[in-house]
Amino acid sequence: MTHDTDFVGHSINDVDTPALWVDLDALESNIARMVALCGQHQVFWRPHVKACKAPGLAQRLLRGGACGVTCAKVSEAEAMLAGGVNDILIANVVVGMQKISRLVEVARAARLAVACDDESNIREISRAASEAAVTVDVLVDVNVGVNRCGVTPSQAPGLARLVSDLPGLRLRGLMGYEGHIMKLEPEEKATASAVVAKILAEARDLLRAAGYEPEILSGGGSGNYWHAASLGTINELQAGGGALMDVTYHDEMHLPGHQFALFVNAQVVSTAIAGRVTLDSGWKTTGCQTGLPRIISHEGAEVLELHAEHGVVVLEDGVKLSPAERVTMVPHYSDTTVLLHREMYAVRDGKIEACWPITAAGALR
Amino acid sequence: MTHDTDFVGHSINDVDTPALWVDLDALESNIARMVALCGQHQVFWRPHVKACKAPGLAQRLLRGGACGVTCAKVSEAEAMLAGGVNDILIANVVVGMQKISRLVEVARAARLAVACDDESNIREISRAASEAAVTVDVLVDVNVGVNRCGVTPSQAPGLARLVSDLPGLRLRGLMGYEGHIMKLEPEEKATASAVVAKILAEARDLLRAAGYEPEILSGGGSGNYWHAASLGTINELQAGGGALMDVTYHDEMHLPGHQFALFVNAQVVSTAIAGRVTLDSGWKTTGCQTGLPRIISHEGAEVLELHAEHGVVVLEDGVKLSPAERVTMVPHYSDTTVLLHREMYAVRDGKIEACWPITAAGALR
Repeated sequence: MTHDTDFVGHSINDVDTPALWVDLDALESNIARMVALCGQHQVFWRPHVKACKAPGLAQRLLRGGACGVTCAKVSEAEAMLAGGVNDILIANVVVGMQKISRLVEVARAARLAVACDDESNIREISRAASEAAVTVDVLVDVNVGVNRCGVTPSQAPGLARLVSDLPGLRLRGLMGYEGHIMKLEPEEKATASAVVAKILAEARDLLRAAGYEPEILSGGGSGNYWHAASLGTINELQAGGGALMDVTYHDEMHLPGHQFALFVNAQVVSTAIAGRVTLDSGWKTTGCQTGLPRIISHEGAEVLELHAEHGVVVLEDGVKLSPAERVTMVPHYSDTTVLLHREMYAVRDGKIEACWPITAAGALR
Repeated sequence: MTHDTDFVGHSINDVDTPALWVDLDALESNIARMVALCGQHQVFWRPHVKACKAPGLAQRLLRGGACGVTCAKVSEAEAMLAGGVNDILIANVVVGMQKISRLVEVARAARLAVACDDESNIREISRAASEAAVTVDVLVDVNVGVNRCGVTPSQAPGLARLVSDLPGLRLRGLMGYEGHIMKLEPEEKATASAVVAKILAEARDLLRAAGYEPEILSGGGSGNYWHAASLGTINELQAGGGALMDVTYHDEMHLPGHQFALFVNAQVVSTAIAGRVTLDSGWKTTGCQTGLPRIISHEGAEVLELHAEHGVVVLEDGVKLSPAERVTMVPHYSDTTVLLHREMYAVRDGKIEACWPITAAGALR
């Protein structure tokens, strides 16, 4: 097989399909938009890389103005670290000694913060960090409404005190991620974002009253970042997916002014059935649990259904696609798509500038 | 990180979560059931490995009585070949010279058959095979109702003649896969399977009338294999997923007598929210486009929703799960789950016998 880096300088159409690629102009425009918004409000941008999964892409976020990255798993952080990213927030609880041992090793090599919502978990991380002679930064996780992890504001000072008192840990602040409001209607989002910010602010005020100054207040997703970053509560924004943009972010989360930056090229593999063509890309290529990908290369061609390895496309009268013809689609959701691939091409004006291995795909632990 | 093979001989509970594993007793029981049914009807069993994705697991299918495997992509076939599997049907059209070049290389090392439904595609494969001095076996793909690939029965003899006449190709027979009837109600399946078999039989009879004897007639999925294999038309069965079994095969396809053989172990990462616990496994661990995984280790605990990296579990009154406690789930659908992982543990009586790398995950080309 041709090695992927051999394609640098070639057209993206020289790469066999399915091919996942990023349009660098669109990516940079989205990054600039998010960074500018953050700059206006003195908020640091720490984009989540759960969707991008590629350290090469993460490096572009950093170059564009990110202060570091946000991860969901220790293994994601390990992949980012191996790719040269060394300022990482794991915006998730890390539970169990196997993962905590690895967490501590990441903390040895990177500036690392982790979310905590449980006393015994905090004690375990403290013990492991102390034994390894490293310091792990901690954000107390506050439940702002997702109802999966995080304590109430009134419980936050107790955990902050514990973190502050134990060796191997440094209390850095609070986080509260509002995943439950990302798909609200546009007119409801400002209010919902304010409700979320109020919960986090309540926790902040209780910490202050207890004598702890939270240096970091982290939150905000791509679906509400323009509200979250402007409310004056958070000073670190976790939203990252908006840099890639996709159909979900466009149609369901209404990101203002973002451009589609993530694409899948597919190829017609069968024209045997009248009125339709079949692509070599199904739901193992563009995840479909949220919806179907959108064809942008051909007017009058629409994805009707995705099978595991096939996309069935219906054609309007008069529209023709030939065998082996290439079709470009926007995935419905970047987060369900990128992890299915092993590399992503960075493209400008149709030409490949880089091939980024997606090393955090499959990083589940 | 501990290398995965270090766990052989250990309990599956020694492996960090999320952990994907196969119960060998259940797997072998499912295999024996499918092989016995095939044996009764003089049908060869060539299980599809699109869900299993691991050559180590494919080897168990072969050891249990499979005559070879079925793949969907050239890259899947390459992964199987690299894992020692050397009798492969690609039950899919392979289009474009980049893929055809690789197809021909697989044919050099393995007994390989491929599906075709297009004249120019057949000519391209013939040319590539001739130049490489290899022979590619061909099954003419007949559309039995899925309406994505495949010709009509009346078009089949023309393609059979072309395959037969061109160098580098050997006409082996016909295939017709009935993916559209897998989720029909049990009482409708016998009739629908007979309709499908009739279409394939019509193509077979037309081939015979034109002077071509199709040695192989391939078809049948896990959702209807007990009908498909007993109708007297196909003599190779493609159904493979039934060996793993899952909630979809159980609840929606009603496979008779199969046992759950594929599991995901997860861990409780948060008990901060009353009445629920949160697992370290979301839809990046067990695909959820068809539905939610089923907890089998704890009565009164049910998955309420999957987020990307979290499973939210509701607990009946009086049911308690502790932080770091392990939970075992059956994925809703093996086909959307295995490809998210990088290794799969083969377990008997709770003890790990082998670790199988899932080398065909991400094999999209």
